[in-house]
Amino acid sequence: MASSWIPLCAEIRASASAVGKKEMEGPLGDRFDLCDPDGRFGAATWEQAESEMQRMVFQTALAKGEIKEEDVGALFAGDLLNQCVGSAYGLLDFDIPYFGLYGACSTCAEGLLLASCMVSYGVFDLCGAVTSSHYCSAERQYRTPLEYGSQRPPTAQWTVTGAGAFLVGRATEGAKRPAAVIRRGMPGRVIEKGISDVGNMGAAMAPAAADTLLRFFKATGERPENYDRIVTGDLGYEGGTLLCDLMRAQGYPMGDRYADCGGMIYHRKKQDVHGGGSGCGCSAVVLSAYLLPALLSGELSRILFLSTGAMMSPDSIKQGESIPAVAHLLQIEHAPAQQNGEGARV
Amino acid sequence: MASSWIPLCAEIRASASAVGKKEMEGPLGDRFDLCDPDGRFGAATWEQAESEMQRMVFQTALAKGEIKEEDVGALFAGDLLNQCVGSAYGLLDFDIPYFGLYGACSTCAEGLLLASCMVSYGVFDLCGAVTSSHYCSAERQYRTPLEYGSQRPPTAQWTVTGAGAFLVGRATEGAKRPAAVIRRGMPGRVIEKGISDVGNMGAAMAPAAADTLLRFFKATGERPENYDRIVTGDLGYEGGTLLCDLMRAQGYPMGDRYADCGGMIYHRKKQDVHGGGSGCGCSAVVLSAYLLPALLSGELSRILFLSTGAMMSPDSIKQGESIPAVAHLLQIEHAPAQQNGEGARV
Repeated sequence: MASSWIPLCAEIRASASAVGKKEMEGPLGDRFDLCDPDGRFGAATWEQAESEMQRMVFQTALAKGEIKEEDVGALFAGDLLNQCVGSAYGLLDFDIPYFGLYGACSTCAEGLLLASCMVSYGVFDLCGAVTSSHYCSAERQYRTPLEYGSQRPPTAQWTVTGAGAFLVGRATEGAKRPAAVIRRGMPGRVIEKGISDVGNMGAAMAPAAADTLLRFFKATGERPENYDRIVTGDLGYEGGTLLCDLMRAQGYPMGDRYADCGGMIYHRKKQDVHGGGSGCGCSAVVLSAYLLPALLSGELSRILFLSTGAMMSPDSIKQGESIPAVAHLLQIEHAPAQQNGEGARV
Repeated sequence: MASSWIPLCAEIRASASAVGKKEMEGPLGDRFDLCDPDGRFGAATWEQAESEMQRMVFQTALAKGEIKEEDVGALFAGDLLNQCVGSAYGLLDFDIPYFGLYGACSTCAEGLLLASCMVSYGVFDLCGAVTSSHYCSAERQYRTPLEYGSQRPPTAQWTVTGAGAFLVGRATEGAKRPAAVIRRGMPGRVIEKGISDVGNMGAAMAPAAADTLLRFFKATGERPENYDRIVTGDLGYEGGTLLCDLMRAQGYPMGDRYADCGGMIYHRKKQDVHGGGSGCGCSAVVLSAYLLPALLSGELSRILFLSTGAMMSPDSIKQGESIPAVAHLLQIEHAPAQQNGEGARV
């Protein structure tokens, strides 16, 4: 059972992204929907700024999809903050049933996978998946307040200030417009390989990504070369290299088709964020702003998308525990428009 | 859409509960499966004790149901600790796909509702739902370390040391044994009514429970008198009274059929826990040890079960926010054995 994948038939009807200054200055900077260069989004604290990002980004996704709030059956949302307050406060304005998630940086794929299950199997017609992270709220919660000016090791990653929202409905056959359709899912197992260095979370998460990918390839008979891109959420430069090594050793070399959202979001040399980007928002904004448009246009026709989460807490690390990690996988495909299609897409 | 309920057809195949000393000394004390009077469960820290409770209780549920680990399609788990480490570390031993949840004390019903959706609609054959709370880990995280000896206001609730695990499969018609079947679900919305007193979380959560119950009654046409019991998770004495008042004011008096797990788990006078029990474990252990056996025996034939969660964090309260809350609802019924039943129940 742990090795079975889930057949899905879910279409991402709309999405939106919001980011801060550093993300806007990165290679994907002109693609995001919203940006606040001072990262405060009009709020008094960093935590409230993160909530406000979620509120704005979900509102924007509704508007882009021309979808009414009352048509959304359920929200799946989570973030990195203690008790996931980014989501609980951020989505308070919406009168939509709410399932709170904690998957650390795997939340984007976790929420999309659950939302896709719900709409593919007829529990709801339409679901939302929302997540966020904020550099300033994450630093003071997980590491040290920014004012402390702590030094970071070369493998440390930079938490993306960003939020992504997605609206997922059942895919309609023969639609008039091209679509990005989630065809398969594979939930991750919690994997722990003894890494306890919170300055190198890519290394802790790479085995979880490898576990999910290997189970998926073995269960489906697919291979890396059957996909245009295999994209992880935030392994960063170090973790991404480790994942490629692990996969090659198992007979599944991924080559140039492998990419990591944490590697795509910042200029590696010019911006020097050390290990690359990370955080729940990292894979969410890259999926919304770059991968989905490429899937809709047909530039990409078939990808695997995995968000990767490190599930430790600052307390568990102080108590000598190592870092458990999880990676959830989605297979997302370009579905071309049908010339005589009648299927209405909301 | 926010007012629609979910038709379900899920059977709780097995469950287990573990508690500490205070819960063992309460009115339901002899019904729990496992108890460690010193609350440490053999672990070095309170957080690790909570993880160990989860591991033991899930292992026990598997054993009671004679279910193999590899037959469980997915786990839905969460707890109150920062980054939900009680669950992430506690269930690490099991090679089962893992969906991390954060619903505060609503986690028991949230996990059961998601698991029930998955098995009722054919995503998985069998799912697990696990949650926990621990008085000692919760106190030092949310309030003060125990050694500080802080005084508590009369409305403050006592976090239950307890963990509950449930294994949920699709209900089989015409089975040879009686069953507890989840027939309907209603996910909660996040509701916030301006309460910011963390010493009175029942008051913050009561409006969320009322919102879910009222939406459910209006959508289904049911009334409180159609149920043997309407049970909330951990509103405590204060919150429970408020909920009854709110429901009566809306024309749905609940009378004696209303009960709260936080009121049932401790002796009100003899144990004096002030506002009653609370915590993710509260509704989970009362459901597993008391409500489910009563549903299986036929003593109860039809109940509504709502776990209630307060979604604030210590930081959000310090920043002047009030307490958002959520309540997820399940309708659980006694399904009698069929004399000529052929349906195999694993």
